Order: sequence, then C-alpha cells, then structure tokens
Amino acid sequence: MLLNELLSNIALNKSLNDIEILNINDLTHANKNELSYIDGEKHIDALKNTNAGAVFVTEKLLDFVPKTTIAIICDNPHLFIAYSSKYFKKDLISKIKIPPVIGKDCSIEDKVSIGSNSIIADNAVILSGAVIGENVTIGKNCIIYPNVIIYNDTIIGEDCIFHAGCVIGSDGFGYAHTKDGRHIKIHHNGNVIIEDDVEIGANSTVDRAVFGSTIIKKGTKIDNLVQIGHNCQIGENSILVAQSGLAGSSELGKNVIMGGQSATAGHLKIGDFATIAARGGVSKSIEGGRVYGGFPLILQKDWLRLQAKILKFIKK
Amino acid sequence: MLLNELLSNIALNKSLNDIEILNINDLTHANKNELSYIDGEKHIDALKNTNAGAVFVTEKLLDFVPKTTIAIICDNPHLFIAYSSKYFKKDLISKIKIPPVIGKDCSIEDKVSIGSNSIIADNAVILSGAVIGENVTIGKNCIIYPNVIIYNDTIIGEDCIFHAGCVIGSDGFGYAHTKDGRHIKIHHNGNVIIEDDVEIGANSTVDRAVFGSTIIKKGTKIDNLVQIGHNCQIGENSILVAQSGLAGSSELGKNVIMGGQSATAGHLKIGDFATIAARGGVSKSIEGGRVYGGFPLILQKDWLRLQAKILKFIKK
Amino acid sequence: MLLNELLSNIALNKSLNDIEILNINDLTHANKNELSYIDGEKHIDALKNTNAGAVFVTEKLLDFVPKTTIAIICDNPHLFIAYSSKYFKKDLISKIKIPPVIGKDCSIEDKVSIGSNSIIADNAVILSGAVIGENVTIGKNCIIYPNVIIYNDTIIGEDCIFHAGCVIGSDGFGYAHTKDGRHIKIHHNGNVIIEDDVEIGANSTVDRAVFGSTIIKKGTKIDNLVQIGHNCQIGENSILVAQSGLAGSSELGKNVIMGGQSATAGHLKIGDFATIAARGGVSKSIEGGRVYGGFPLILQKDWLRLQAKILKFIKK
Repeated sequence: MLLNELLSNIALNKSLNDIEILNINDLTHANKNELSYIDGEKHIDALKNTNAGAVFVTEKLLDFVPKTTIAIICDNPHLFIAYSSKYFKKDLISKIKIPPVIGKDCSIEDKVSIGSNSIIADNAVILSGAVIGENVTIGKNCIIYPNVIIYNDTIIGEDCIFHAGCVIGSDGFGYAHTKDGRHIKIHHNGNVIIEDDVEIGANSTVDRAVFGSTIIKKGTKIDNLVQIGHNCQIGENSILVAQSGLAGSSELGKNVIMGGQSATAGHLKIGDFATIAARGGVSKSIEGGRVYGGFPLILQKDWLRLQAKILKFIKK
Repeated sequence: MLLNELLSNIALNKSLNDIEILNINDLTHANKNELSYIDGEKHIDALKNTNAGAVFVTEKLLDFVPKTTIAIICDNPHLFIAYSSKYFKKDLISKIKIPPVIGKDCSIEDKVSIGSNSIIADNAVILSGAVIGENVTIGKNCIIYPNVIIYNDTIIGEDCIFHAGCVIGSDGFGYAHTKDGRHIKIHHNGNVIIEDDVEIGANSTVDRAVFGSTIIKKGTKIDNLVQIGHNCQIGENSILVAQSGLAGSSELGKNVIMGGQSATAGHLKIGDFATIAARGGVSKSIEGGRVYGGFPLILQKDWLRLQAKILKFIKK
Repeated sequence: MLLNELLSNIALNKSLNDIEILNINDLTHANKNELSYIDGEKHIDALKNTNAGAVFVTEKLLDFVPKTTIAIICDNPHLFIAYSSKYFKKDLISKIKIPPVIGKDCSIEDKVSIGSNSIIADNAVILSGAVIGENVTIGKNCIIYPNVIIYNDTIIGEDCIFHAGCVIGSDGFGYAHTKDGRHIKIHHNGNVIIEDDVEIGANSTVDRAVFGSTIIKKGTKIDNLVQIGHNCQIGENSILVAQSGLAGSSELGKNVIMGGQSATAGHLKIGDFATIAARGGVSKSIEGGRVYGGFPLILQKDWLRLQAKILKFIKK
C-alpha cells in the first residue's frame, strides 16, 4: 500500500514523499518498505538508527528521525500504528492452499485440522480436535493432545508435548487508546517460537508477538493454566508452575522458576537461576541466582522474616 | 407444570391455590406464570412489588408477599428454588432442528458446529473446532478462533473477536446447600449478551446468568484466562488483564481497568474509570475515577506508601 | 523389560540379580514385578515394607531395603525413576481398537471422539468436539459440554457435569532434575477418578496421578479455571471457586471450601469443613471446621484484625 493512501485512510495529512509500505515493524527491525513508530523517549536510540521507510513521531522527537526515513508527525504514534496495523494483518485462511507435509510414522487422529503450508515432522502424535494453523512447523516426536490450538506461523522444535486445550500463538493483549477511551487493536503479525523439549500444560496460553517472536527456549516446562504474554522470552530449562503469568515482553533467563500463581509485570528481566516463590509478583528487573517472594517482591528469606514479624504484630 | 405437582415433586405441601408454572425467575422479573423466591431481607422491596405467580418465602417474611402471589412457606427458599430449577431447564439439544442462517461472505471452516436456530451475520470467520450452540446470534464481521465454545442462547454483537478455547455462556457457579452439606445446582436459564467490538482472550470463561443476562458492553477487551462470573455486567471500553476474575453479579462501569490477577468478590459495583492495579482484590463497591490496589483494596498510592513502610519495618 | 536391560538403558550398572519389570510404582503399591524408588528419609517405613521387585536407593538408605527387593544404588533415585518411566508409558492410541460401548438414550453429537474400550452409560449427553480417550468409564446421566477433553483411563461416576473446555487427566507437572539443570519428565501412569454428582467448570484442569489416582469425591463442585494437581484427593461436597489451585498431592477433607484464587502448596491436608477465604494460600496442613485466610494462612478473623491494624499503621 502506498504511504499516502494509508495516511488518508487513517485521517492524517499526506506526506511530501510517498513510498510503498509492505508492513509495520518496530524501529530496530523495520526496513525501507516498513512503517514504524516511536513510543516514548526511551526508544530515541532505536529511532536514530532505524531503517524504517517511515515513522510516526511526535513533533518533539522529530529531530531524531534519520534523513532516509519519512517522518509522519502525530500526537499519538502508538495510536496511529494501531490504526495502520489492520491494513497489514494477514489472512487467517489462505486463499491458495498448499497441502501440509506430514512426516513418517505420524499418528494423526481423525478430527485433526492442519492448515495450509504446515509441516509436521516424523513421529508426531496428534490427537482428536487439535487444530494446527497455517505455516506452522512442528519438529520430530512431538505429542499434541486433543483440542490444542496452534495459531498460524508458529514454529515448534522437537520432542515437545502440548497438553489438551493449550493455545499457542493467540494475539497479544495490545491496544492503543483514543482520547475518548476506546481501545484500538494492534494487529499482531509476529509469531511464537518454541524450541526443543518444551512441555506446556493443559489450557495454558502463549501469545504471539506483535512484531518478531515470543520465544520459549529448549527444555522449559510450563504447567496448566499459565499465561505467557506477547513478546516474552523464556530461557532454557525454566519452570512455570500452574496459574503463573508473564505479562508482555517479560524476559526470563535460563533455569528460572516461577512458582504457582506468581506473575511478572512485563517489560522486565529476570536473571538466570532466579526462583520466584508461589504468589511472588515481579514488578521490576531482578538479578539471577536468588530466591524471591512476596508482592512487592523481596528476597524470600526477608519475606519469611517479615511474615514472622507480622504474626507477632497481630498478637499485640 | 402445575404448581402443586412441582411442590409434591420437591416434597413440599400442596398450595391451596394452583397455577401453571412455566419458569423460575427473580422477584423483579417474574410474571404470573413464574415461580420466584426471596433470599434474605435485602430483597423485601422486590418481594412487595413482585408479579410472580408464586414465591418460596420463610414464615418471617410472609407478610410481604403481595396478595396476587401464592406464598409457599419453607425454611430455605434458595434451596427450594434450586430443587425447582431442574424442572425448567432447557434441552441442550433441540428435538426439532431449525437450520442455522449464515450470512454473506462468511468463512466457516470444516469441523465447525453451529446449532439449531442460530444466526451468523455477514463476513464471519469461524475456524475449525469452534462450537456455536443453539439460538445463538452473532453479528457482522466477527472472528471466532478454533475451539471457541459459545453456549446456547448467547447474543453477540458486531466486530467481536473470540480467541481460541474461550467459553461463553457456561453455567454460573450457583448452588443451594442442604443441611447435610450437599450442594443443589441452580440450573441457569439466563444467557450472555456481548455487545459490539469486544475481544475475548484465549481460554477465558464467561458464565451465563442464572436469570436474565451476563452483559459485556461494547468496546471491552478481555485478556487470556479471565473469569467472568454469572450475572456480571461490564461497562463499555473496560479492560480485563490476564488471569483476573469477576465473581458473580459484579457490576463494572465504563472504562474500568482490572489489572492482571486482580479480582472482585461479587455483588458489588465499580465506578466508571476506576483502575484496579494488578493483584488488587475488590471486596466492596468503590467509586470510579481512582486507582486502587492491594487486598483488601485501598488506594494504590496508599498501598505503595504502605509497602514502603513495610520495607522499613522489615529492616528494624 | 528385564531389569538389567533397563539399567543399561539408563546408564547404570547391572544388578547381580535380574527380574522382569512390568511397571514403576510407589513403594507402598509396587509388586514384585515393579520398580520403585525412595525419595527422602520420610519414606523409610514404606521402604522397609515394600514389596517392590527393585528399588532405586541412595547408599545411605541401603540398609532399609527388604531382602526380597533388589537395591539399585544411585545418587538420585528420583531422577532414575524418571529416566525409567519412559519405558513403561502407555500408548496414547491403542494398536488394537475395541469399540466403545454406549448406553441407552445417550445424545452424542457429531464431532465427538470416543476412544477404544471406553464405556458411556445410559442417558449421557455429549456435545460437539468433546474428546473421550481410551479406557474411560462414564456413569449414567452425565453431561459433557463441547470440547471437554477426558484423557485415557479416567473413571467418572453418575450425574456429573463437565463444562466446556475442561481437561481431565492431563499429566501432572512432575520432573526430576539433572545436575546440569535439565528436567526429566516422570511419565504419569496413574489416572483420575471422579465420583458421582461432581460438576467441573469451564477450562478447569485436573491432572492424573503419577501412580495411583487423583480422586474427586462425590458431590464436589469445581468452578471455572481451577487447577487440580496430580495425586490430589478432594473429599465429598467440597467447593472450589474460580481460579483456585491445588498443588500436587493436596488432600482435602469433606465440605472444604476453597475461595476464589486461593491455593495450596501441595503435600498437605485440609480437615473437613475448613473454609479458605478468597486468595488464601495454604502452605501447611490445617485442621477442619475453621475459616482461614491470608498468605501465609492464618485464621480469617485474625487476618481481618491484622488488616484493620495495617490500615491504622498506614495512617500514622
């Protein structure tokens, strides 16, 4: 779509220059045919270095737009990228179907759906009611229980197990907000990548990235009813116990343990070998190798001391 | 069913008067062919003004029953309405099938079920494994991802998106309790109404009303693994973040934000533009326009101050 | 499989004696053709009395192995039983299919899957997309809503109701851990037993036992999005409100109430008629007949007093 056609669709003034826009993307990854936006000053460095063909930008940050990038001035770049996103969303069902490729020795029950252009490697077991979307790749020896849903574009490694009803690749919970309080969906063109030897529990949910990928690295084990927000990255061999939740863009190191009903606030990092006790609520980045608990999060040993003090306090 | 036949079925004495009972309903909405009950003194005004044909009532509240309503005295009206409810539950599968009506330009994949007498408006996309019950109405341009389940009688507006595995219209968690500790199901004859432009996340659940409707108003966005109890009402443009839960009969104003893993205790009101921070637990009605947090809930700024104090306290 | 073949598969030295091993099991239930393990000193009595054909045991506990049992010394018995478990996991799909038996007057919709050798008793209603595994028994008058998944070997009583998307019998979240931080799956050969008159809410999950059974006794009612870990036992007429979670091997008495978003830490007992208020976190065994709340858990009346004190504290 031509940039000026897009701008007129979303009620913005035309640009002096016009280019072909093929997609939206973040500042770091956008190319000269992609449209991006800057959402706050913390991304100024990314803006300075962007290769995006065009960016939505507030007047205040205009000077940081590279000369090779068309600047589109607006009050709320996040909102305008949301408005734009719907013009680049992919079809859920391809018009041209490419038959999926199924490997050797697979056991695929009746009532399984496998979408166009997907690849199922050898020895897969896929049980009734599972729905594999389009352009999905599933490595060798995976077990997919009934009624698992894998959205389009998901990439899955070898030896993975997905329990019944889990959902991989649903849209992230991302909206921009209008002045009158409406929420404009940011269509999620990213995907989910799951590496080898990952197990995901029943009815857990893993959201796709808005741009790029939500990534779960090899050996990670996820229990039932766990929520993984969009653009999360989970390191190798991590453990997420039932009903825990990661808000969007949480980044976990390797061998992180998230206890039952624990959670993160999103856009933060948890270091390697950190343990979050049950119900712990992580609201800022924490270093690895330690055991944390409570909400707000403190060291678990301090939380235990605190609770002992509180027990005394109650008896006064 | 004749009232006296019903009463003899549930081991109560016959009434002096007998009428045809066609359904059960709450005091406010019951008509002369409906049976109701009073559950505690807070509903005395509704009792005084009821048009119900008959009511279960304790001896103590007998005087408040209108002359036109048959009073059936019992110890536990809630229990007897529960016993009665099973005689009025609807068939899950109609004996007489009315073919569903499907609008223009819909993309409905194989392996989708659409029940008797349902209506799917134009441009719907319904993916594999979705199950649409009977007497369901779905407005234009809706996207229904795989394995979504929409129970009978649900009414859905236009431009809605339902992510994989979400469940709309399941029975509320409503039981009456016998003296010996058993729980008697109250069959839920209500439904769910979802207005335009609502998005519901993967594996979230929305219960139907016991009587009347659970209502989600236009523009509201619900994340993954969220629980909406029976008879809730959610105002326009509200936001419910992942793993939050609303207990039955919660009433949210417009533009309310429920943070991740937050919850309400049910039978309470949250004013317009209120924000509940992550993990906030709402146990009584609160006014709008403010930011709350903690459990028990306080203003979020007070909660933050409190936590700072507690951090000092721990260091003593 | 011969014991020595198994041991060589998992890189352990051969035993002086060799026997046929048909399964793995816990110390108490293992027979002479089964392999077991001891995981910590608290199980010494079970070890002394085991009838297991062979056990993995640390050198330290070697003296407690009965003379009739072959002792296999290793550093980490839990890890080696995990390595062994994969040789005894059952096929998910039987090679020889035995047609399921369906009772009288059942209403089973199209698009329902019922596995080999399963039995559905009279008057069942099973709606579209439900997947009943192999060797499942379902008693009379059950209602199974769309897209419910019941894993192999589950036993269900009469008059049960399973709401859409709930998952019964998924693998428990059980792994042993290697020195280099990998998690080795313990294949779960146990099952789930659900007695009469149990109702389970939409998208709730009940894990199968690693050995033996996860048991939900008659009359218990479970709300939406509830997690029941492996090997839990839930007594009669208990109530589990939405988003509550039981960690593995929790044992609830009868008429226990778990409030919304409450949880247990696993391997603990809750006495009859105990009530856990919403958000209560049970981390050790508690006696019945009382109302608890908070996390760490205290008596609810103390929790309320504590919160009142904290409110004063904040105002200082």
